[in-house]
Amino acid sequence: MTVVPPKFVRLIGKGRASDVGGMTSSVLAPTIRLRRTPFWDRVERAGVQVVSIYNHMLMPCMFESPEEDYRHLKGHVQVWDVSCERQVRLRGPDAQRLAQMMTPRWVGDMDAGQCLYVPAVDRNGFMLNDPVLLKLAADQFWFSLADSDLLLYALGIAGGAGLDVEVDEPDISPLGVQGPKAGELMSRVFGHEIYRIPFFRFGFVQFNGIRHAVSRSGFSKQGGFEIYVDGAENGVPVWDALMEAGRDLGVRAGGPNYAERIEAGLLSYGSDITRENTPHEAGLSRFCDTERSKEFLGRESLLRLESEGPKRQIRCVSIDGDKVPACDRPWRATAGRRFAGTITSATWSPDFETNVAIGMIEAEHWDPGTRLVIELPDGSRTATVRGNFYI
Amino acid sequence: MTVVPPKFVRLIGKGRASDVGGMTSSVLAPTIRLRRTPFWDRVERAGVQVVSIYNHMLMPCMFESPEEDYRHLKGHVQVWDVSCERQVRLRGPDAQRLAQMMTPRWVGDMDAGQCLYVPAVDRNGFMLNDPVLLKLAADQFWFSLADSDLLLYALGIAGGAGLDVEVDEPDISPLGVQGPKAGELMSRVFGHEIYRIPFFRFGFVQFNGIRHAVSRSGFSKQGGFEIYVDGAENGVPVWDALMEAGRDLGVRAGGPNYAERIEAGLLSYGSDITRENTPHEAGLSRFCDTERSKEFLGRESLLRLESEGPKRQIRCVSIDGDKVPACDRPWRATAGRRFAGTITSATWSPDFETNVAIGMIEAEHWDPGTRLVIELPDGSRTATVRGNFYI
Repeated sequence: MTVVPPKFVRLIGKGRASDVGGMTSSVLAPTIRLRRTPFWDRVERAGVQVVSIYNHMLMPCMFESPEEDYRHLKGHVQVWDVSCERQVRLRGPDAQRLAQMMTPRWVGDMDAGQCLYVPAVDRNGFMLNDPVLLKLAADQFWFSLADSDLLLYALGIAGGAGLDVEVDEPDISPLGVQGPKAGELMSRVFGHEIYRIPFFRFGFVQFNGIRHAVSRSGFSKQGGFEIYVDGAENGVPVWDALMEAGRDLGVRAGGPNYAERIEAGLLSYGSDITRENTPHEAGLSRFCDTERSKEFLGRESLLRLESEGPKRQIRCVSIDGDKVPACDRPWRATAGRRFAGTITSATWSPDFETNVAIGMIEAEHWDPGTRLVIELPDGSRTATVRGNFYI
Repeated sequence: MTVVPPKFVRLIGKGRASDVGGMTSSVLAPTIRLRRTPFWDRVERAGVQVVSIYNHMLMPCMFESPEEDYRHLKGHVQVWDVSCERQVRLRGPDAQRLAQMMTPRWVGDMDAGQCLYVPAVDRNGFMLNDPVLLKLAADQFWFSLADSDLLLYALGIAGGAGLDVEVDEPDISPLGVQGPKAGELMSRVFGHEIYRIPFFRFGFVQFNGIRHAVSRSGFSKQGGFEIYVDGAENGVPVWDALMEAGRDLGVRAGGPNYAERIEAGLLSYGSDITRENTPHEAGLSRFCDTERSKEFLGRESLLRLESEGPKRQIRCVSIDGDKVPACDRPWRATAGRRFAGTITSATWSPDFETNVAIGMIEAEHWDPGTRLVIELPDGSRTATVRGNFYI
């Protein structure tokens, strides 16, 4: 029996798989291990063409084409299924202490309702994740995760140190509402009070009698919100309400856009930052408060690293020439034949009409304007280190 | 510019994506975050058609068709790129203590050169992974992982308890050699000494002057070995030597086979067992030695759970009718309209000519011969609980 799955036919029909930023693409075997999201039926119905796996869960990446998705995100409003931003919930008397043991950022003066971008760092000073920390109450915190099982790190510390804290992954599935019309759409569904949520703060909305946290945040620089949908069974009604209310705003399904996030300098843990990097290499020194964060397990290591200073660091790089192929492996950068660093994310930017890229660049070569040669799979390209991202 | 990538053309040409056990398939966006393996150029050249993501890394799943791969595995020998079985290395005076804190299985009398299948369990008694533990020396252990970042758990305990141990992920990429002709192939490449490695023990081989650990193990019941290739740059020569030496044995690239591993009762962490399950529910009670494993962090919890006994447990289930669709979400099982459990893995078995499945079945319904009704996406099927897997 040979049945060609409908989605596959559609992909062939549109000839779009080729369009994923010039990538070669692989077909993914479905399995329970790579979890569906509460919104996935809707995501498929919306015509998702390319997906990723993030925290053992499906994440939609591309619907129309990389460029159409990019233009639409910058001009309208999109609903993103980012259920894969799993929450690690800490509850109990030692919740704050545990949070502080995991990050060099000072969390002791957080307000309830505040979000903080916190590098999660091990005792040796290496990055384990770069989540957003939400303070729900004096004894309850959520880490909203990048792609690693930070839950296991929290469980390990709690067990190893005998802390009085419960650590779990609640049934919370974030939905991003991103783009310049995000506020308008959100206010239509949840009321004008959503405008009273400041950037990187969160509040609560009621929908069908269920309370969901809503933060002013998201993995784009186009403005927007994240709805922490409480309970998988409550996901589809929220999705449908947003799509219905936003019809005249041109709302559609989307996902984190590769070109847009590179332009904006939004780092991807696992690509641009890994467990091989310190927060200083990741350009996150401003979030390392070793003075006040005395309980942070990597404090000694970071104090030592701070005195030495980083030998390489994240930089924005523009790569000359036509659209680059998929950056599915690190690309070596040289300057005058000497190793100068590694490119970890790169794609064509429709707005800036160049290849925008993120790299970990050695100190001798990281000054703005430094010319590099990048070794791509299909040949070498010249490139330039920039002083800032495209913002 | 629209360029259809070669692999996509090939998939269309053969019309095989449909063949993935009746699955609907998604196209995966390449990114550095989902790591390539040292063997991946060879894997692509060998014609991989379907992949998965495991421990943030690519894993080949299917080359010819599910059935052809299955027949070949049972009759010949395959080389599997299982680089995604990442190693968590514990080194130092507290290495054994840390290993013991992570599992209820007694590791105190392991020999160097021994492998143990160890449930990794948190302090509340829930499964975090089901790795194989290798003892390299009195002060060095490797966990060879299933799909979760157990590295972060080990780092957390080490940091929280202040242990004198170094925890890292070495540059080791396992290569499976599986099938009835695995011994013949391995001996041709590495010499007859490989036959002296007993089941679930490991030794070392030299290849091109590099020392690699080799264990008699693997994620199939067809017999075989795993080569812990030391150093990414040393991967391709080992791959090529195996392919060259095994030409007349019909060697080819393969990967864990869904039907074969279900028949054999090989559980998949993330599908059949999750962080919601205790080792007793996972059917792993024989590996829980709470008497001797006094340092294990979940000892109190497991002692309580043992006195209660599990209320649900892993069972083999056969599902009636034609080939089932892809089991990409849990399927509810009922008996006399009452909830009876959940099916987590299922596919057609060519040899046993039935749909073989794994489920977490409630105690009232887990006796062999119990008839169930399974709710599939395309309708209900009758099914039977079995007393054992197909071995």
